[in-house]
Amino acid sequence: MTQIRFAVAGARGRMGQAVIRVLTERDLTIATTFDKGDTIDLSQADVVIDFTTPSSTLALAEACALEGEKRGRALAHIIGSTGFMPQQLIALDAYGERNIVLRSGNFSLGVNMLMGLVKQAASKLAADAWDIEVLEAHHKRKVDAPSGTALMLGDAAAEGRGVDLNEVRVAARDGLTGQREPGTIGFSVIRGGGIIGEHSVLFAAEDEVITLSHSARDRTLFARGAIEAALWAAQQSPGLYDMQDVLGFR
Amino acid sequence: MTQIRFAVAGARGRMGQAVIRVLTERDLTIATTFDKGDTIDLSQADVVIDFTTPSSTLALAEACALEGEKRGRALAHIIGSTGFMPQQLIALDAYGERNIVLRSGNFSLGVNMLMGLVKQAASKLAADAWDIEVLEAHHKRKVDAPSGTALMLGDAAAEGRGVDLNEVRVAARDGLTGQREPGTIGFSVIRGGGIIGEHSVLFAAEDEVITLSHSARDRTLFARGAIEAALWAAQQSPGLYDMQDVLGFR
Amino acid sequence: MTQIRFAVAGARGRMGQAVIRVLTERDLTIATTFDKGDTIDLSQADVVIDFTTPSSTLALAEACALEGEKRGRALAHIIGSTGFMPQQLIALDAYGERNIVLRSGNFSLGVNMLMGLVKQAASKLAADAWDIEVLEAHHKRKVDAPSGTALMLGDAAAEGRGVDLNEVRVAARDGLTGQREPGTIGFSVIRGGGIIGEHSVLFAAEDEVITLSHSARDRTLFARGAIEAALWAAQQSPGLYDMQDVLGFR
Amino acid sequence: MTQIRFAVAGARGRMGQAVIRVLTERDLTIATTFDKGDTIDLSQADVVIDFTTPSSTLALAEACALEGEKRGRALAHIIGSTGFMPQQLIALDAYGERNIVLRSGNFSLGVNMLMGLVKQAASKLAADAWDIEVLEAHHKRKVDAPSGTALMLGDAAAEGRGVDLNEVRVAARDGLTGQREPGTIGFSVIRGGGIIGEHSVLFAAEDEVITLSHSARDRTLFARGAIEAALWAAQQSPGLYDMQDVLGFR
Repeated sequence: MTQIRFAVAGARGRMGQAVIRVLTERDLTIATTFDKGDTIDLSQADVVIDFTTPSSTLALAEACALEGEKRGRALAHIIGSTGFMPQQLIALDAYGERNIVLRSGNFSLGVNMLMGLVKQAASKLAADAWDIEVLEAHHKRKVDAPSGTALMLGDAAAEGRGVDLNEVRVAARDGLTGQREPGTIGFSVIRGGGIIGEHSVLFAAEDEVITLSHSARDRTLFARGAIEAALWAAQQSPGLYDMQDVLGFR
Repeated sequence: MTQIRFAVAGARGRMGQAVIRVLTERDLTIATTFDKGDTIDLSQADVVIDFTTPSSTLALAEACALEGEKRGRALAHIIGSTGFMPQQLIALDAYGERNIVLRSGNFSLGVNMLMGLVKQAASKLAADAWDIEVLEAHHKRKVDAPSGTALMLGDAAAEGRGVDLNEVRVAARDGLTGQREPGTIGFSVIRGGGIIGEHSVLFAAEDEVITLSHSARDRTLFARGAIEAALWAAQQSPGLYDMQDVLGFR
Repeated sequence: MTQIRFAVAGARGRMGQAVIRVLTERDLTIATTFDKGDTIDLSQADVVIDFTTPSSTLALAEACALEGEKRGRALAHIIGSTGFMPQQLIALDAYGERNIVLRSGNFSLGVNMLMGLVKQAASKLAADAWDIEVLEAHHKRKVDAPSGTALMLGDAAAEGRGVDLNEVRVAARDGLTGQREPGTIGFSVIRGGGIIGEHSVLFAAEDEVITLSHSARDRTLFARGAIEAALWAAQQSPGLYDMQDVLGFR
Repeated sequence: MTQIRFAVAGARGRMGQAVIRVLTERDLTIATTFDKGDTIDLSQADVVIDFTTPSSTLALAEACALEGEKRGRALAHIIGSTGFMPQQLIALDAYGERNIVLRSGNFSLGVNMLMGLVKQAASKLAADAWDIEVLEAHHKRKVDAPSGTALMLGDAAAEGRGVDLNEVRVAARDGLTGQREPGTIGFSVIRGGGIIGEHSVLFAAEDEVITLSHSARDRTLFARGAIEAALWAAQQSPGLYDMQDVLGFR
């Protein structure tokens, strides 16, 4: 197989910069980089890594599709942009017929691996014997709780059990709480200092506890994950994918 | 489905006692209990939980088979006895045609779940980017290191990667070790106080770490795991099974 | 020094039984054991371990004082009874002139050590740079949150900083919390399975985190701590003491 | 008090750069910065932060002393240089009469706090009941084990117990180790990925475990610690100090 050639959109942004840095470190081929206002030339690229905005992403999807049709081989479009409106998502999903579309809200391989493992463990451990708790810790500047990733892990656990997280979630405990309700999923939140992001899911039984954890040290991991995703996507057929596909959990 | 009826072999032993205590706690039906020298009557039992010795286990396997043939429905024989000679194991395995035989060296649901998750994570995370380390802690009276369970977890990781643990294992680090060799699996051992058993498998990448852990609080967990295994086995056809089957990892 | 001789009050209770078991294990001298309705004879005892009720404890304090006066050497009275009324406490404290009185709500050496360390760390680490968080985990049957021990640890941290816990405590985080307020002390609560008791105090700075933790495996530790306290108290002069004195934090 | 004015030696080095960055972030006054070959003018500085080489440090010590004598008030010399020969250390120590000399091999406030806490806990917890273990984890590129910081923590524990680490240290466990010897201090080493530095000291008793841990996220913490040390040192009289003095553990 010939070397996969990368295009980097949003090349002057924080994530674009990180992607370029990691591609260079790993000696991978950068075909082109561009940002707002630059001409887009995808003729030398096999995959496009795109941490931009919904409207830029949609324009780029069309550019990928046209280029793919020209050469008779679909391009892979790796999308980390967020904030899509429902209609924009529908438009984007339609490109799954023309491009290899891989979109994720969190490109960390580790977090996505954890989600897959949590879902499985939750599906196999009886809810009446194993209590699930999600714990997360982030820096003091974070303004919301629990983190989006903690909720994704809670969703994975709930899905594994075949229940809806909203119906079993216990947000925080203080005062006379009474005994823990079987089947609930509790969340705990730590805030302090510069903690980048720690997540743990506990499965606690009468005499034993399983803990599945992830610890992030540096935001570069999202760039690394997007590149792994791109290397995987370049080998696929057109369609809609996410990180659970990359990890083979589907 | 009618209630499953339990027979407990080795009923005066430490594990037999624990099994009886947990069956009673959970309001499950105890059909009969017996120990060395007692008459064995399996006519009211569906499953037999057996933490005894190889020779007692083989005799019990024959008793199960005869009783199963009499009623036209196989009994489940849950075996926690250890120390079988190779020939005894061959004889035992032959009962897989007449009984539902489930044997394990460690009936902890949690440890077996962890093994399944570790194997999967190891199979999906690239060896050049993710370093695997196994950490275990036990009480000060333990005379060998690493623990059998730590080695089982290391085996699961190695199997996930398609390598042989003996070829990649790094036993302990002290002095000028040089840089870590890619693809190796390191072991660390803590000994102190009365720690029952803690096991962790780390997958460490450049910017993130996944940790999969198990903590045991009380040896009763092995009784609980054997009972879960029995409830599962009672629904199966004759054959040879282990805890990875109970958890659906095969 | 001659061997210290123990009396055990409440000898048929759960804690009394545990104390007797540990004394026996450690080959220490049991002079007498008694419970409600038994005659109390302290003539052969140097220390009394007392996990009973406020009224029994007060009667026992008088018996200790009389025996001490008779022999011209004060007895040590180790008190784990709880639920004293303010007036009862005043009466009890008065015995500090006649007995060596050592009272505590938690005889775990480890928890008391942790309290001392937390207070010190909090007094030395600047509140604007180090955020303090208390995390605890207990079994699913616990009906209140946070645990009394977690609050004691929070108190130790607040005292180290010279503030009142009630004014800086953040009970639980959920939703749009805003950024963390400097100087606050946050609490997180995990409930699940049979966890006996885990407590952690985090000091989180921009680039580093200190975590001071305690993990309890078995309630026997309270008996062990009371016996350590008794061995220490037997060497003291009459007065009022607690576990922070035993550990030399005062 | 007027604002303390900082001089930064080795200003173009990795640590010098980090110190300048943190001083700027914290809006502290930088009087002068210099590196090899630059003229040194300390006339506007109260403290000098010096991560350079032994010979540069000795020259700078003389410059501090002369400037201090000129103004009739000693300067503080904060030294993070390493690799001194015994004779150089003797020469440096002599400056303790003319400068406020604060030297450390590790300026992390957190690690130094941990050392103080470990020493204390070790001095108060009986060696026959509490087993001490040191665990550390670092990135895969580290070539020696255990880390210098792990050995410092082991030293602190040994000192707390009044023993010599070399006589009680257990380097690594593998195979038939036999039961743990009372009073020993065990070391465990994890290597993987990009882990910056994790250190834990466990005190394990029969029913409870105390764990004192430090986790580093970014090497900037050493610059932060040196600046804290400088702010403290500027208020002291001439003499020889280290980080344990800054934290008030002496």
